[in-house]
Amino acid sequence: MASIGLSVPPGFTISTEACQEYQQIGKKLPEGLWEEIIEGLKIVEKDIGNALGDPSKPLLLSVRSGAAISMPGMMDTVLNLGLNDEVVSGLAAKSGERFAYDSYRRFLDMFGDVVMSIPHSLFEEKLGKMKNAKGVKHDTDLLASDLKELVEEYKGVYLEAKGEKFPSDPIKQLKLAIKAVFDSWDSPRAIKYRSINHIHGLKGTAVNIQCMVFGNMGDTSGSGVLFTRNPSTGENKLYGEFLINAQGEDVVAGIRTPEDIDAMKNCMPEAYKELVKNCEILEQQYKDMMDIEFTVQENRLWMLQCRTGKRTGKCAVKIAVDMVNEGLIDSCTAIKMVEPRHLDQLLHPQFEDPLAYKDKVIAKGLPASPGAAVGQVVFNAEDAEAWHAQGKTIILVRTETSPEDIGGMHAAAGILTGRGGMTSHAAVVARGWGKCCVSGCSEIRVNESEKVFFIGGNVINQGQWISLNGSTGEVILDKQPLSPPALSGDSETFMSWADEIRRIKVMANADTPEDALKARSNGAQGIGLCRTEHMFFASDERIRAVRKMIMAVTLEQRKEALDLLLPYQRADFEGIFHAMDGLPVTIRLLDPPLHEFLPEGDLEHIVGELTSYTDISEDEVYSRIEKLSEVNPMLGFRGCRLGISYPELTEMQVRAIFQAAISMNNQGVTVLPEIMVPLIGTPQELTHQTNLIRGVANEVFAEMGTTLNFKVGTMIEIPRAALVADEIAKEADFFSFGTNDLTQMTFGYSRDDVGKFLPIYLAKGILQNDPFEVLDQKGVGQLIKMAIEKGRAARPGLKVGICGEHGGEPSSVAFFADIGLDYVSCSPFRVPIARLAAAQAAV
Amino acid sequence: MASIGLSVPPGFTISTEACQEYQQIGKKLPEGLWEEIIEGLKIVEKDIGNALGDPSKPLLLSVRSGAAISMPGMMDTVLNLGLNDEVVSGLAAKSGERFAYDSYRRFLDMFGDVVMSIPHSLFEEKLGKMKNAKGVKHDTDLLASDLKELVEEYKGVYLEAKGEKFPSDPIKQLKLAIKAVFDSWDSPRAIKYRSINHIHGLKGTAVNIQCMVFGNMGDTSGSGVLFTRNPSTGENKLYGEFLINAQGEDVVAGIRTPEDIDAMKNCMPEAYKELVKNCEILEQQYKDMMDIEFTVQENRLWMLQCRTGKRTGKCAVKIAVDMVNEGLIDSCTAIKMVEPRHLDQLLHPQFEDPLAYKDKVIAKGLPASPGAAVGQVVFNAEDAEAWHAQGKTIILVRTETSPEDIGGMHAAAGILTGRGGMTSHAAVVARGWGKCCVSGCSEIRVNESEKVFFIGGNVINQGQWISLNGSTGEVILDKQPLSPPALSGDSETFMSWADEIRRIKVMANADTPEDALKARSNGAQGIGLCRTEHMFFASDERIRAVRKMIMAVTLEQRKEALDLLLPYQRADFEGIFHAMDGLPVTIRLLDPPLHEFLPEGDLEHIVGELTSYTDISEDEVYSRIEKLSEVNPMLGFRGCRLGISYPELTEMQVRAIFQAAISMNNQGVTVLPEIMVPLIGTPQELTHQTNLIRGVANEVFAEMGTTLNFKVGTMIEIPRAALVADEIAKEADFFSFGTNDLTQMTFGYSRDDVGKFLPIYLAKGILQNDPFEVLDQKGVGQLIKMAIEKGRAARPGLKVGICGEHGGEPSSVAFFADIGLDYVSCSPFRVPIARLAAAQAAV
Repeated sequence: MASIGLSVPPGFTISTEACQEYQQIGKKLPEGLWEEIIEGLKIVEKDIGNALGDPSKPLLLSVRSGAAISMPGMMDTVLNLGLNDEVVSGLAAKSGERFAYDSYRRFLDMFGDVVMSIPHSLFEEKLGKMKNAKGVKHDTDLLASDLKELVEEYKGVYLEAKGEKFPSDPIKQLKLAIKAVFDSWDSPRAIKYRSINHIHGLKGTAVNIQCMVFGNMGDTSGSGVLFTRNPSTGENKLYGEFLINAQGEDVVAGIRTPEDIDAMKNCMPEAYKELVKNCEILEQQYKDMMDIEFTVQENRLWMLQCRTGKRTGKCAVKIAVDMVNEGLIDSCTAIKMVEPRHLDQLLHPQFEDPLAYKDKVIAKGLPASPGAAVGQVVFNAEDAEAWHAQGKTIILVRTETSPEDIGGMHAAAGILTGRGGMTSHAAVVARGWGKCCVSGCSEIRVNESEKVFFIGGNVINQGQWISLNGSTGEVILDKQPLSPPALSGDSETFMSWADEIRRIKVMANADTPEDALKARSNGAQGIGLCRTEHMFFASDERIRAVRKMIMAVTLEQRKEALDLLLPYQRADFEGIFHAMDGLPVTIRLLDPPLHEFLPEGDLEHIVGELTSYTDISEDEVYSRIEKLSEVNPMLGFRGCRLGISYPELTEMQVRAIFQAAISMNNQGVTVLPEIMVPLIGTPQELTHQTNLIRGVANEVFAEMGTTLNFKVGTMIEIPRAALVADEIAKEADFFSFGTNDLTQMTFGYSRDDVGKFLPIYLAKGILQNDPFEVLDQKGVGQLIKMAIEKGRAARPGLKVGICGEHGGEPSSVAFFADIGLDYVSCSPFRVPIARLAAAQAAV
Repeated sequence: MASIGLSVPPGFTISTEACQEYQQIGKKLPEGLWEEIIEGLKIVEKDIGNALGDPSKPLLLSVRSGAAISMPGMMDTVLNLGLNDEVVSGLAAKSGERFAYDSYRRFLDMFGDVVMSIPHSLFEEKLGKMKNAKGVKHDTDLLASDLKELVEEYKGVYLEAKGEKFPSDPIKQLKLAIKAVFDSWDSPRAIKYRSINHIHGLKGTAVNIQCMVFGNMGDTSGSGVLFTRNPSTGENKLYGEFLINAQGEDVVAGIRTPEDIDAMKNCMPEAYKELVKNCEILEQQYKDMMDIEFTVQENRLWMLQCRTGKRTGKCAVKIAVDMVNEGLIDSCTAIKMVEPRHLDQLLHPQFEDPLAYKDKVIAKGLPASPGAAVGQVVFNAEDAEAWHAQGKTIILVRTETSPEDIGGMHAAAGILTGRGGMTSHAAVVARGWGKCCVSGCSEIRVNESEKVFFIGGNVINQGQWISLNGSTGEVILDKQPLSPPALSGDSETFMSWADEIRRIKVMANADTPEDALKARSNGAQGIGLCRTEHMFFASDERIRAVRKMIMAVTLEQRKEALDLLLPYQRADFEGIFHAMDGLPVTIRLLDPPLHEFLPEGDLEHIVGELTSYTDISEDEVYSRIEKLSEVNPMLGFRGCRLGISYPELTEMQVRAIFQAAISMNNQGVTVLPEIMVPLIGTPQELTHQTNLIRGVANEVFAEMGTTLNFKVGTMIEIPRAALVADEIAKEADFFSFGTNDLTQMTFGYSRDDVGKFLPIYLAKGILQNDPFEVLDQKGVGQLIKMAIEKGRAARPGLKVGICGEHGGEPSSVAFFADIGLDYVSCSPFRVPIARLAAAQAAV
C-alpha cells in the first residue's frame, strides 16, 4: 500500500518473481531471496529500532500474501511472527504478562494452522477446555496465568501433530511463513478463483512483511473494519464495525459482537477523529469508496489495510454520480467505476440476501440469464400458461426447451433446463426477455411425463416451490425472499454520461413490438436483429400456416400457405416499425431449419397432427418429415438456403416488410427498414436474394404508389463469408456479424452439444472462457477484423455491426468498439450494459 | 481452324463478343454485326469468286457454332445457306438438276428444323410418302423430278407450321441462322453440359460461316469421318467411315450404312492418298490423335473439320506413350495428354458399352465412387455378407450406411444409397476401397424391413439384378455386361514419367494392412491417414470392447475396456508398419463421436444389447446413451475432445502404436510413425495431447529398452486452427489439412445434409462445383494458404500435407502443388490419379 501520510506499520515486500521462481524450481526458496529479506528486515529494524529474535527489543512481523486483498484463496491471514519464549518474556516485561501470553497463544494457533497445517480445531479444543475449567465465557476473561498454561498446551499440540517441536527460531518461522504464502498460490481455492474470474497471465504472489501493531493491549486499544461509504446504498457515511481490546481477526471472525463504528467516537475520540480524516484522505487519493482495516494501539491509530470496497449495483451507480457531484472525479472516471455486472443487478430482481440461502442450494447449472426467480415448478409449456393464467408464479423445468415452449417460457418467472449451454434455446430466449434462466443443470433428471425431477437425493414434484439464481446458476429449495429491480434517477444521470462518451451505437435484438418498446426504453438506437420466425409460434393459426408451407408438396400448395402467413407478418412488422419510429429496424429473413417448426412428440403424433389440417396425405407427410430430418441441422437446410430453394418464401417475407413499411410511412411514421439475408457463404447467394428483394420492393412500390429508402445487407456468420467479404460487400449495404454461428463454425463447436467437453476444457485451462459468452478475439475476432477490412476496402463506408450474444458482453463490446464496428446489437435487457461497456471502451 | 496447307473451304468467324452482346441486349443482333458479316462475306466471295444470292455464281455457305466442336448442346449442324428458287436454277444449270434439288430439299429440311424450329418429322413424313409413292428404298433412288416435287411440298410445310413462306432471301437466311446459333448458347442441353463439365466464365459462342462443299455430287463425291488412330485401343491406324455420294450428316445420321475408311482406297485412290497425308500433317501439327470430317467433291478432297479425338483411358495412355516413342512429343507433353479420368477408367471395371443400356436407366444419383458394378440387390449388411459368402455378387441398397454396415459394404460389388452426398459415409468408404457407389439417389425409396425399394414405377425386390455406374450415377435395370480394369505395360511407362516430373508427394489413406499394400502397389509414398477407428468394427470382440469403453461409468471400467482394445490396435499397427516398411505411416487418434460405435436399431434393442455384455445396469446404459446423443454430432464430442476428456484413451492408442513400432523395428522393419491429433482448434489442445504422447512414448521406450524417431502433428480441419496456425505450429511436427471437415465448417455445410440444397445451388449457378468434390480455392483454399504461411513462419520446414477427399481430385491436387504442400494423401485407388495430377501441375 502506498503511504500517503497515514500512520501505517513499517514493512517491505518480496517480489512476485521470487514466488514464480519458487514454483519453477520445485517449491524451494530461490537463491538470493534470503538476502532480499535481510535487506528488508534491516529497513524495518531501522524504522522501529527493534530486531527480529532480540528479546530485549522484539520485532514482531506479520506476513501475508501481497495478492490476498484482490484474490480470495491466497493466504489472507495477517500472521504475527517472531514470538518464542524469550521474546515473550521480554514482551511481558515491557507490556504486561496478559498481553504477552495472549499474543503468544494466538500466534501459536495461527502459525500452526496456516503455516504448519495443524487443524485450528486442535487449538480451539484446548482453549474451550481452559475456559470451561476456569468457568469463564470470553477469551478476555482468562487470566495471564491461564494464557501461559495454554501456551504450553498449544506447544504440545505441535509436538503431537507434527512430531517435532514448534519452531522457536524467528528466522525459521519467517522462512516457513514465506513458503506458506508462496504455496497458497496453488491452493485449489485460489486456482478456482482465478479461473472463474478470468485472471490469467499473472506470475504469482508477492509476500508482504509488516511490523505488527496490537489492538488487544487493553481498553485503550481495539480494531475495526469499515467502508468509507455504505456499500449497499452508497450513502456517504462511514459504515463499519469496531471492537475494543481485540485484534482484526476477532472483528472478522465474530468472536464477540462488534459495535457500530459510531461507538468509537465516544470511547476513542482522538483516534476516531484521525480515522475520519484518514478516510477522507484515502477517498481523495484513490477517488473511490474504500474498504479499510485499522488498529488502535494504546490510543494511537494505525491504518493496516485499504482496498477498493466491493459494492452493490445500486451503490456503485450512486457513488459514481455522487463523486462527480462532489467534484472528486470527472464523468469519464465515473464511467470506469461502475462495472457492467453492477448495471445487470439493477436490471433484474435479486435475492434479498444471497448468503441466507446457501445451505438450500441443491444444484448448480449455468448462469444462463441473470436475476433471481421464485416460483412453483411445472414441467410443460401448457401447464405453465394455465397456472400463470390462474395468477400463480411458476418455474418451468424442462430437459431442454424448443420453440414450441415459447408460450410457457414467457409465462414462467424463471426457467431451469437439464441440458444446453449458455446459448441454448432456453438461454437465448430467456436473456432476450431478461428472464431468469439456469440452463445445462446436468445434475437434475427431469421426468416430464411423471411431472417430477430428481436432484441429488431430492425429489421435486409439480407445484413445489423452488428459487433460481440466474446470475450464479444456483438452484435453491423453497421460496427465497426477492428484492425487485431498482433503477434510480442516478442511473439515468449515469447512463447519459455513458452515452455522451461512447462512439459505438447500441441496438437491440427484438422480435415483437413489445420487445421493441422495451429496447427503446432501455436506450436502444434501433433494432439490429428482428428474427421473423419468432413470430411464427405466436398463435395456432400462424404455426398451422407455417406447417402447411413446410408440408407443401407443390409450389402452388406452398404459395397458398405463404399467402396465409403474409398478413400476420405484415401486422408484426407494422407494430415494430411503429414502435421504432425514426430508428432503423433490421429484419432477418427466415433462418432456422424448417423442422424446428414441426410439432413435438413421437412421429405418429406429429403425422396425425399435420394431416389434420394440411390436406396432405399421410404418406406424403411421412415422406416430407423424413426429408426434413437432418444429421447436423446447424449446418443444414436453413438460412438463405431456404430462400434460394424456395424463392416464394423470401418474396412473401419481403412483401410483408414493404407493405408494412409503406402503410406505416403513410401514417406519418418514419420507417427505416434494413433487410438482412442470413447464412451467406458466397456472393452469388446474396446476389440471388438481393435481386429478389429489390424486385419485390419495386412491385410493392408500384402497387402502393409510393417508394421509400431501404437497405439490404447480410449476416456474416459463416467463416467463408468473412474470407470472401470483399466480394460480398459489393452486394451488401451492411454486414452484421452473427457471432453465435460464427463461433460455432470457427471452433467447430455445436452450442447444443458443447456441454460435453467445455467444462473440462475450462477446468484444464485449455480454454480461458466459454467462447459463446466471451468473444474469442484471436480466432473469431481475427475473422471479423479480416471481414471488416476486406468489406470496407471493397465498399468504403460499409455499415458494420454485430448481433450475436456477444453484443451484450462487456469485454466483447470493448473489442468491437476497438476494431471499428458501427454498432452492437443485443437483447433489450442488456442494452444498458452494452451502452456502459461501449463508454468504458471509449475512455 | 488454323489452315496448315490443307484444302479447306474458305470462311470467316463472327466473334464471341457479338454473341455476348446479343444475349445482353435482349436477343437482338447487335449493331455493327452486319458490317462485320459483310466484310467476311467479301473475303469469301473474293476467295471463291462467287456471291451470296447471285444465281449466276451462287455462294453456298454453312453456318455453325464456333463452340460446337468442344461443347455439345450448341448448334452443331453444318447448315447450308443461300439456296432459293433462283440460286437452285443456277445450280441446276451448272451441276445438274438432281444435285441441285437434292441440295435444296436438304436445305429446306435442315433450315426448317434447326433455324425455324419446324419439327424434322414433318419433312421426314413427306420424304417417306414420296419414297413409298415411287417405290424406292434409298433417298438416292429418287429422280430429280421427284426431288423438285418434294421441294414444293417442303415449302408447304413452312407455310403450315409457321404461317408464312420460307424466307427465300439469302441475306435473311443468314441473319436467322446467326440468331439460331446465338440462341443455342442458352439451350437447356448446352447449359447442362457446361454445368456438368465445370465450364464457366465463357462469354458465349462465335459463329463460323464457311463456304460449302458437296459430297453428294455423284459417285466422284463422298463424305467421311475418321480418327487418326483407334480411339478405343490407341492402335496407330486410321479408324473411320466413308459414304459415297453423301453429305457429312448422312454419315453421322446413319441413313445408309457407311463403309470402312479403307474402302475409299479403291474408289478414290488419289483423294485417299491425300487424306492419309493430311492426317499425318495434322498429327504433326497438333501432336495428338485427331477426329476429322472431310468431303470429296468431284474427286477433290476438302478437309471440313478437325478436332482432338475423344478416347478411352486405355487409348489415351497408349497414344501418349506411342507418340513419345515416335518422337512426336516429349514426356511432358505426354503427361498433359492423359486426363485423370482416363486413368480412373483403367483402375475400375467399366461397362462394355455405356450406350447400350441407356433405355434401362431407372434413376440417377451422385457418382460417388467410379466404376461399374452388377449384382443382386440386398438390403442389409448381414444379408450382404451371407450372400457374398455363398458366392453371389451383390449390390447393397440402403437409405444410408453407417459404420455398422462396413462388413456388408465390403462384401458388396457396389453400393446404392438414397441419402448422403459425395462425402457421405457410403461414398467415402467406397472410394477408399475403389468400390462402385451411387449415393444420394433421392428418387429411390428404400423399405429396408420389407426388403424392397421403389423407383419411379419400378419395384425392386431382394435378389433382383441391377447395375450401377459409379462414374455417372446411373442406376440400371438388369445385368449389364462389364469389362474388367486393364492396366497395361504402357501405363507403367507412363506413370514412371509422371513420377519423374511431379514435385509433390502422393500418400494414401489406408486403415488396414490390406489397404496399405494396395496403396503401396499403386505407388503411394506412405500412409497420410490411417483412421484407427475403422478397425473397431473388424470383429465382434473388438466392437464389444469399444462399447464397454463407451459405456464405462468409472475411470476403472474405462481403463479395463481399453486394456481389451490395446492388443487389437497393436496388431493392426504392426500389420500396417510391416506393409509400409521404410515409408511414413501417419496414424490419426480416435476421431468420430462415440455414439457412432453404438449398435443400430431402436433404443430398447440397443440397451438390451449393451447390458448383455457390459456389466452396466440398464438405467446407467440409458443414461449414458442419452448423454451421448447430440444435436450436431459433427460439431460435438469428437476428435481430440475425446482424448482430452479421457486421456486414458489417447494413452492406450499411443501405447499400441509405440509397442507395435518397436516390435516391428526389432524385426528389422523400418518404421516411421507419425501421430496425428485430430480436430485441434487451439494450441492448448495440441500441447495437452503432445505431452501425453511424448510421455507414453518415453514409458514404452523404457519398458522395451529401445527408442525410435517419431513425429507428432495435427490435422488442420477447424477454421480456427488455420487462423492460429502460427501458435499451433510451435507444437506440431506436421500439419495435415482435413479438407472434408474444413470444407464443412468453412461453408457451414453438413456433408450428410447438403443434398437438400446443393443440387439447387449447382443448377442455379450459385456454386460452380460441389465443394466436397473440388476444393473451394477461394474460401477453404485461402484458409489453407494462410495456415501454411503462418505455420512455416513459426516453424520453418514444417511438413504440410492434406488427407481429405480432395487429395485425389485433379484440379485440387494442382492447387495443392501450387501452394507448396509437401504431399497429398488420398484413397489407394486414387493414388495413380493424384500422381498424374501432380505431374500435370508440375509441367
